[in-house]
Amino acid sequence: MKAMVHVMLKQGVLDPQGEAVRSALGSLGFDDVENVRQGKYLEIELAETDRERAEARVREMCEKLLANTVIESYSVEIG
Amino acid sequence: MKAMVHVMLKQGVLDPQGEAVRSALGSLGFDDVENVRQGKYLEIELAETDRERAEARVREMCEKLLANTVIESYSVEIG
Repeated sequence: MKAMVHVMLKQGVLDPQGEAVRSALGSLGFDDVENVRQGKYLEIELAETDRERAEARVREMCEKLLANTVIESYSVEIG
Repeated sequence: MKAMVHVMLKQGVLDPQGEAVRSALGSLGFDDVENVRQGKYLEIELAETDRERAEARVREMCEKLLANTVIESYSVEIG
């Protein structure tokens, strides 16, 4: 079973990486870019074959390792 | 208009970051994880209001800055 995980900085948390990308795009002439937020994307392949159990397992991984839940939010899709 | 961009290492390109995550998950007891690939995810807000023009613009950004197309592939969704 494959899980797709997005980890993003929460709204209101400063995103210097996204800001650096916006600025670099501006220097390249892409001056119509209003805002950029950058996050992580992970594809995780699991031996688990039950959809619900796989999702619960991946959420546990996010809480324990993949996201810093103080400043980051995450979403999990099972595909 | 908002664009969602995923940038991933191409199939066959070694992903040490994903491998490090897999190994760390293993140490935490998540030993049912078979494989992890890690990529970047960007949300880009554009002044452009035409869907097709926005997508073309973001693809140009990927080619010029956001992805290293020798080793990375990207996908763009306009939402």
